[in-house]
Amino acid sequence: MVGYSFMGAVHSHAWRTAPRFFDLPFAPELTALAGRNAAGVQVAADKFGWDSVETDWRRLIERDDIDLIDICSPGDTHAEIAIAALEAGKHVLCEKPLANSVAEAEKMTAVASSAAERGVYSMCGFTYRRTPALALAKRMVDDGRLGELRHVRAQYLQDWLSDADAPLTWRLDKSKSGSGSLGDIGAHSIDAAQWITGSSITGVSALMETFVKERPIGGDFIGLGGHGGTDGPRGPVTVDDAAIFTARFGGKTSGAGRTSDGGPIGVFEATRFALGRKNAMRLELNGTLGSLAFDFEDMNSLSFYDAAHEDAGFRRIIVTEPSHPYVGNWWPTGHGLGYEHGFTHQVVDLVNAISAGEQPAPSFSDALQVQKVLAAVEASAEAESRWQKV
Amino acid sequence: MVGYSFMGAVHSHAWRTAPRFFDLPFAPELTALAGRNAAGVQVAADKFGWDSVETDWRRLIERDDIDLIDICSPGDTHAEIAIAALEAGKHVLCEKPLANSVAEAEKMTAVASSAAERGVYSMCGFTYRRTPALALAKRMVDDGRLGELRHVRAQYLQDWLSDADAPLTWRLDKSKSGSGSLGDIGAHSIDAAQWITGSSITGVSALMETFVKERPIGGDFIGLGGHGGTDGPRGPVTVDDAAIFTARFGGKTSGAGRTSDGGPIGVFEATRFALGRKNAMRLELNGTLGSLAFDFEDMNSLSFYDAAHEDAGFRRIIVTEPSHPYVGNWWPTGHGLGYEHGFTHQVVDLVNAISAGEQPAPSFSDALQVQKVLAAVEASAEAESRWQKV
Amino acid sequence: MVGYSFMGAVHSHAWRTAPRFFDLPFAPELTALAGRNAAGVQVAADKFGWDSVETDWRRLIERDDIDLIDICSPGDTHAEIAIAALEAGKHVLCEKPLANSVAEAEKMTAVASSAAERGVYSMCGFTYRRTPALALAKRMVDDGRLGELRHVRAQYLQDWLSDADAPLTWRLDKSKSGSGSLGDIGAHSIDAAQWITGSSITGVSALMETFVKERPIGGDFIGLGGHGGTDGPRGPVTVDDAAIFTARFGGKTSGAGRTSDGGPIGVFEATRFALGRKNAMRLELNGTLGSLAFDFEDMNSLSFYDAAHEDAGFRRIIVTEPSHPYVGNWWPTGHGLGYEHGFTHQVVDLVNAISAGEQPAPSFSDALQVQKVLAAVEASAEAESRWQKV
Amino acid sequence: MVGYSFMGAVHSHAWRTAPRFFDLPFAPELTALAGRNAAGVQVAADKFGWDSVETDWRRLIERDDIDLIDICSPGDTHAEIAIAALEAGKHVLCEKPLANSVAEAEKMTAVASSAAERGVYSMCGFTYRRTPALALAKRMVDDGRLGELRHVRAQYLQDWLSDADAPLTWRLDKSKSGSGSLGDIGAHSIDAAQWITGSSITGVSALMETFVKERPIGGDFIGLGGHGGTDGPRGPVTVDDAAIFTARFGGKTSGAGRTSDGGPIGVFEATRFALGRKNAMRLELNGTLGSLAFDFEDMNSLSFYDAAHEDAGFRRIIVTEPSHPYVGNWWPTGHGLGYEHGFTHQVVDLVNAISAGEQPAPSFSDALQVQKVLAAVEASAEAESRWQKV
Repeated sequence: MVGYSFMGAVHSHAWRTAPRFFDLPFAPELTALAGRNAAGVQVAADKFGWDSVETDWRRLIERDDIDLIDICSPGDTHAEIAIAALEAGKHVLCEKPLANSVAEAEKMTAVASSAAERGVYSMCGFTYRRTPALALAKRMVDDGRLGELRHVRAQYLQDWLSDADAPLTWRLDKSKSGSGSLGDIGAHSIDAAQWITGSSITGVSALMETFVKERPIGGDFIGLGGHGGTDGPRGPVTVDDAAIFTARFGGKTSGAGRTSDGGPIGVFEATRFALGRKNAMRLELNGTLGSLAFDFEDMNSLSFYDAAHEDAGFRRIIVTEPSHPYVGNWWPTGHGLGYEHGFTHQVVDLVNAISAGEQPAPSFSDALQVQKVLAAVEASAEAESRWQKV
Repeated sequence: MVGYSFMGAVHSHAWRTAPRFFDLPFAPELTALAGRNAAGVQVAADKFGWDSVETDWRRLIERDDIDLIDICSPGDTHAEIAIAALEAGKHVLCEKPLANSVAEAEKMTAVASSAAERGVYSMCGFTYRRTPALALAKRMVDDGRLGELRHVRAQYLQDWLSDADAPLTWRLDKSKSGSGSLGDIGAHSIDAAQWITGSSITGVSALMETFVKERPIGGDFIGLGGHGGTDGPRGPVTVDDAAIFTARFGGKTSGAGRTSDGGPIGVFEATRFALGRKNAMRLELNGTLGSLAFDFEDMNSLSFYDAAHEDAGFRRIIVTEPSHPYVGNWWPTGHGLGYEHGFTHQVVDLVNAISAGEQPAPSFSDALQVQKVLAAVEASAEAESRWQKV
Repeated sequence: MVGYSFMGAVHSHAWRTAPRFFDLPFAPELTALAGRNAAGVQVAADKFGWDSVETDWRRLIERDDIDLIDICSPGDTHAEIAIAALEAGKHVLCEKPLANSVAEAEKMTAVASSAAERGVYSMCGFTYRRTPALALAKRMVDDGRLGELRHVRAQYLQDWLSDADAPLTWRLDKSKSGSGSLGDIGAHSIDAAQWITGSSITGVSALMETFVKERPIGGDFIGLGGHGGTDGPRGPVTVDDAAIFTARFGGKTSGAGRTSDGGPIGVFEATRFALGRKNAMRLELNGTLGSLAFDFEDMNSLSFYDAAHEDAGFRRIIVTEPSHPYVGNWWPTGHGLGYEHGFTHQVVDLVNAISAGEQPAPSFSDALQVQKVLAAVEASAEAESRWQKV
Repeated sequence: MVGYSFMGAVHSHAWRTAPRFFDLPFAPELTALAGRNAAGVQVAADKFGWDSVETDWRRLIERDDIDLIDICSPGDTHAEIAIAALEAGKHVLCEKPLANSVAEAEKMTAVASSAAERGVYSMCGFTYRRTPALALAKRMVDDGRLGELRHVRAQYLQDWLSDADAPLTWRLDKSKSGSGSLGDIGAHSIDAAQWITGSSITGVSALMETFVKERPIGGDFIGLGGHGGTDGPRGPVTVDDAAIFTARFGGKTSGAGRTSDGGPIGVFEATRFALGRKNAMRLELNGTLGSLAFDFEDMNSLSFYDAAHEDAGFRRIIVTEPSHPYVGNWWPTGHGLGYEHGFTHQVVDLVNAISAGEQPAPSFSDALQVQKVLAAVEASAEAESRWQKV
């Protein structure tokens, strides 16, 4: 694994935990953790349970005792590491967003495709797909229980940058992170929406905003946010604080019309300034037969409206039944799961796919499509919100 | 009063009820009801408690025993009636949207302004302003409890057209209604957002859609929707089924604001196809100090987030305390009000303003600003979502 | 009508409003309002729309132009007025609780029964039966959608006495009110539970408590509560502040039921000290096939769990569809009703029953059964919670 | 560790995970797992990560490489194992309920007390104390933010026995489990209520019920419930399906009165027949200054009402801030935890207490107090609900 901050911690937990609750074809071994700071990486490896450390990720690729590279470092490093790993015959799990540009993502996808032909697989870490409630949502849409979709309503609301004195971290530096709320959290909404609806976004019209244009350099960093010094020097925020856009989705089948055989229309909002909303990754779908609504702040439930019922209403399905996706291997009914379980499920799906010789999802190609939407959003925002095809 | 369908019923109730719960300077008398169908208007007058009927609204204007005209007929009739009434010295309460075009609305506003100088007042029926929870929201924003606003999130979600066989009514005929979900319900969101934030929308980028392009002529009409025959003739739907747009609001004060032009950014969605959402008129505001959220489907409460609190969280204020706006004249704490109470409060505010010789709000000028936003939304939607200044 | 405080206001509104929204066989006339204070009753009559006043309720009974007496005065006056009215051939609507003792209630019920044989009808004002959501609940239970009932969970939580300095009103004087939270609000829970389940409470075990034993005499009275002087004289609270009890319900049919006596078991709680709960009249029923939950603080919805559904969950039915009980005569879908609508529905049901020559429900006999439960609760609380048969 | 079913799995996860997220004074080692079935225990040990197995728990006590015994076997085995372990100088973590009788619990408590004097500690597994939201609740009560408590409202609602054909497991056999819903889930409510309020239950009046008196022997067992054969033989259910009771709590200080210087009154309900409620462990407290409400079905939040606020309302605190108890070592704000995290926190607290030479909580003495309440509930239910002192 490369990287050992927030994502490194949760990925390590997933690798350790997956075989304890799921029957896996392979027993994952936490062989080596890579990071540039020798002292830091050693502390992390001890804490997270890795057997050895490297200070250069290239060493991971050279080692014979490593079959898979898990990339948890910032977005500007993804392309180089992933391409090198795949070309060296290592499977790859890469955190999202796949890259910081469409060009990089296209290169990665091309390499991933040819690697897959050699049985070397790659996957991008859009873990919300593995939240049980969203996995159930996907199944319900696939089963036709919503009918033809008309509306997609996707919000990803956080508030950890609402304080104008929160410090300037790498997430606010465009050269490191690619974009701000758009790529960090909006990318999750885009992937989830495209995956669950089974159709791609074909065009967008966008507005982006940076509310706080300078922030303290340094400062106490707590969680994602924290508080910087108010008197010290400040540096520029080079990414968006919020991104909002309208979208059209393609129909599942080809055809001319936008509606009866076209796809739904969508509204997206990603922000880290929605004071009071902590991790409100919300998705609502309205179809001709039913509707679904999800909010990660109540992550163990899914609301479903079935128009066929007399006395219809949104029902809050507590997604903890053994029959629901992913859930049967954990606790009894009603005993909820947490944020990290999605990562454990990701490991399970990845290991099973590799073992079966099948392409795991989301592939780099799926992630490239997300990257194209991100690029279209930025292009529209720069062009007076004009419609931008994806 | 002109018109006696849904709006006529609720306005009549408000005129009858206001003096029973509020101390008014005048006792309203329900003098005459106008409608083209002689039999229908007589039945309605008996039912709603009007003393006499007219089959031509012009007669109301001629009568000396009438001081105020309440216009509840479709939007294409508003301008002619309102102008005639104001010029004849009658006060006017006009349902929203004010008119079917900006040009009409401008003419009405000009007439209203000069009438106001003569002590003849007019008001437009954006009644959501009188919902106690939204009146409280306004007061909290005015009191600075949210700080500087960053996000406006406005949805008006209904589902009564979701059935593709619901009949083709006047609300789906652009020549009668002006627009579809945009003017019918989106207008409420626009007015509420501008009023509560105290700032105007300065530009929009929009997408509009008509999902069902033809509908049965005739059919059983129940509530707003109902079900038409599936075999009979169909006619074209000439209005939007859904309208979604991004927006910028002007700042309240000039100067070097933190955001690019000082005000919040907004996302709006109006649709009658959000299956399962019955009358979800929702508004959320995020500021630097606090946030507010409202949903008309739980209309007696307002959610407020105060960032200053240790252990902060959105709190559900049940807006039924005697100290809250409008509420003290009704029932004890916790005994909720319904949809029609906003109309009763509207009567109270209107009668009090007339008595005091003050311009009631929302004025025709306020309603004209809404009309301009509606026009900008339509223009943007027709121009590939390009940014359209208001 | 006798009495013109809170209940007088809402009853008057109901009498005025019912014919405006419902087709009634008779047009109700608000003939005379009775109250001991001549000035007060005249002001109330003008405000509420009554044609004349009386300072002695006995005059109402003597007048030939009065067909029905609506009793809204405190509980200690009910028996005398109701009996006199019924014997004089006037129909009676009597506020709850029916009386301040079982003995009084039995006498009233006997008189009511013989009056009914002469076509003179009486009804007790348990208006929660007319809340659309609870009326729907009743229909769903009757239709067997919950199966055999196992649990009843009834709470009536208010907080207007939580302030130890709220003034000592007649509601805290046992000689006037009969009991405290038990009779005032617990009675509603008992009636609703017995009515919806279709079975009677057969025994109880209870605990009652008076948290604040003395309160200020006088003081500002606002809503139900308010604030008294803290320095002035205090008087004793002679009623319960809270009453909690367990209960058994009789089965609907005789036979070898699955439970020990065939019906569900219940938990009841009535209090005016549940800080933050304003009018939380809650009822939850669990059966073998489904469950229902209601909270008056969200009065336009009903939660229903149908175990037969794959992916089951409690669904929030917004009870504003034209097909739902009482609702079709009001507003379109999603436009909620308020507290007072139950009283309007009560008038509709009462007038229709009288016109049809049928006994309206709840009858005095139904109310007597509630009174017996109240008495059993008090008896058990006084006997170390020992089980008390009803 | 002794036992390896549901509780064994979650305890193993906690032992493995605690050192990965918390700085512990000792690194826990999963030395040996004991179970009677040699094959079964080996499979479990491999799955859960234990180094060795034993088929007799006595061997664990004899081994020198074991310092602590974690007892996850059924309640009828607790006393013997715990006493032997403590006398042998092993620390003990014992699942709840502590024992199947007060006599056993008293014996265990006596042994635990004398062991503690020798630095050998014991703890009972009431893990809900470690749910972050309830830990926050405890802190808020301790900080006086609720004022003097008046009401406790505790429900523990499940539905996995609602199906009359769910199989007859050891949990329905009184000789194994001690009691049914009362000891299994009601015990959690009792411990949580006593712990958070800081006062003990002094008396109860109870009603218990067994709705389904015979169940299939064998059958498919899924989660906690499942479905047995409908045609095969049935055996008697010897425990309660539901237990409901009223209670009084002692004041925190001595004194004569029940109220102003006494403790709150409480209503408790434990059932496995509340159809639709999956794991609704709910607790609500009403005080003179504030109220708190919790529901495990939305486990990452706590509702708090602060009467001091203008525009007060219950606020939903999302308990994922780094400042909240237990949370800082996990994920960023808004990224919720699951059921098992309470067990990890339990390990952390236990290891820290042992290291510090302090008695961990809840002690066996705390658990004995719970046991006494359970016994009083059973005694009252058998004596016509008569008040039973604890």
